[in-house]
Amino acid sequence: MKLLRLGDPGRERPALLADDGRFLDLSGLTADIDGAFFASGGLERVRAAAAAGELPELDAAGLRTGAPVARPGKVVCIGLNYRDHAAETGAAVPERPVVFMKDPGTVVGPYDEVLIPRGSTRTDWEVELAVVIGARARYLDNVEQARDCVAGYAVSHDVSEREFQLDFSPQWDLGKSCETFNPLGPWLVTPDEVGRPQSLGLRLAVNGEVRQDGHTTDMIFPVGYLLHYLSQYMVLEPGDVINTGTPAGVALGLPGQPYLRPGDIVDLSIDGLGSQRQTFAAA
Amino acid sequence: MKLLRLGDPGRERPALLADDGRFLDLSGLTADIDGAFFASGGLERVRAAAAAGELPELDAAGLRTGAPVARPGKVVCIGLNYRDHAAETGAAVPERPVVFMKDPGTVVGPYDEVLIPRGSTRTDWEVELAVVIGARARYLDNVEQARDCVAGYAVSHDVSEREFQLDFSPQWDLGKSCETFNPLGPWLVTPDEVGRPQSLGLRLAVNGEVRQDGHTTDMIFPVGYLLHYLSQYMVLEPGDVINTGTPAGVALGLPGQPYLRPGDIVDLSIDGLGSQRQTFAAA
Repeated sequence: MKLLRLGDPGRERPALLADDGRFLDLSGLTADIDGAFFASGGLERVRAAAAAGELPELDAAGLRTGAPVARPGKVVCIGLNYRDHAAETGAAVPERPVVFMKDPGTVVGPYDEVLIPRGSTRTDWEVELAVVIGARARYLDNVEQARDCVAGYAVSHDVSEREFQLDFSPQWDLGKSCETFNPLGPWLVTPDEVGRPQSLGLRLAVNGEVRQDGHTTDMIFPVGYLLHYLSQYMVLEPGDVINTGTPAGVALGLPGQPYLRPGDIVDLSIDGLGSQRQTFAAA
Repeated sequence: MKLLRLGDPGRERPALLADDGRFLDLSGLTADIDGAFFASGGLERVRAAAAAGELPELDAAGLRTGAPVARPGKVVCIGLNYRDHAAETGAAVPERPVVFMKDPGTVVGPYDEVLIPRGSTRTDWEVELAVVIGARARYLDNVEQARDCVAGYAVSHDVSEREFQLDFSPQWDLGKSCETFNPLGPWLVTPDEVGRPQSLGLRLAVNGEVRQDGHTTDMIFPVGYLLHYLSQYMVLEPGDVINTGTPAGVALGLPGQPYLRPGDIVDLSIDGLGSQRQTFAAA
């Protein structure tokens, strides 16, 4: 299933994108797609209602696409999780996942404008596979249990300001948490439809020029490992978002470091998860 | 004013602690003390209702005290913000605030049990002054504007696992985000009642032995500076919590590094903001 949220910011309506391309209205089943929806078996209710043909069609014409999950309780990020990206940034391949966080308030829709912070000269892109948590994960015993905690997957743009991230202190969160820095979506795609999360191509282009062209087979720590690992140190709750790292090709690692400027257009996509497009603008 | 939330986890009732020691029920004014409450002028409504004698008394007997703010959108932490603490950890005095984040799900009540994570050998204490945001802070012009964004102050316990924080990767969030690692409260005290936030003593004792005895005059970056600084890089929203750093005396900096063990009792207090007590237990 592909779930999404359509409408103005803060007023999105939950919807299902059916296999025939129609948008179906979920607002009779749930007020929103969020942690409470996942925790209460919402995905199963949607599946049953769709199978029974009970969902009314939604006229999506002219509606903005929001992030497919409302108000994540936290956004956990994994750094340096692709071998080629670790190499391009000059970092060693980490022995354990590098874990940091983004302000959950940075999550915006996949086509929303992204703001280059005031004073920024090094705003950078990062296409990532996001995992959305569907069930509480606390001290999981193994990777199989981790898989059962996944609500679905989405395209995530982990926008980063490298000076704020790397030069202002050794802690990265400041350069990851600027306003609008986490476009998410367009869809939350359920695991049955995604198949193996380690067999997905990821691509990102800036003004039409391909900058990242990676594959989740190149992850150092795969999705199941990450969720099991994180659950030993924190509690993952339904609706939380995990950004699983980015492949090579960010501005930081490219000759001339071609950081983003107002007016730049970034296109991102992941196999089976849809595509994003953002125009960058001055904050 | 002193605001608090009384009741079982997830079912707390908003209350006001009156000057005469009575608890007054705020549930006729607001469903909860959270970002929406602050953003909609909730503090002014409480002040007016209290002055008019319109608030009914609440029988608080036997009720648990929750955190005084529900569901913070984010918890931002400032590291190494007291000169003596930077020295005891062997770190240089930072030129800019060191900014990291805690999982907002770690926020619990001031007397709740705190869990020592499985596998932990280095669980540590940190008494901190928390600032709760009352109005949106985005690219503030100056420190005076920052002061207008404060809803109030509270005692915060920034519990930390030093191996997870310092040894598992260079990013600290993992060792700061374990379950129950942020007791907050008992009260949210409004700025008019606190006076200058840089004139408060902070104390912490473990099993009756004083370990931290600091003062907010020793902060490297004071509260107004921090909010102004943060607002240049992220948007602070009503209900967000800022932990402003801890003075010297943590286990990491003490001879023998006497980290916390199950059964240990930690008492914390800050002038005018009340006191906390937690018993530590194995997760």
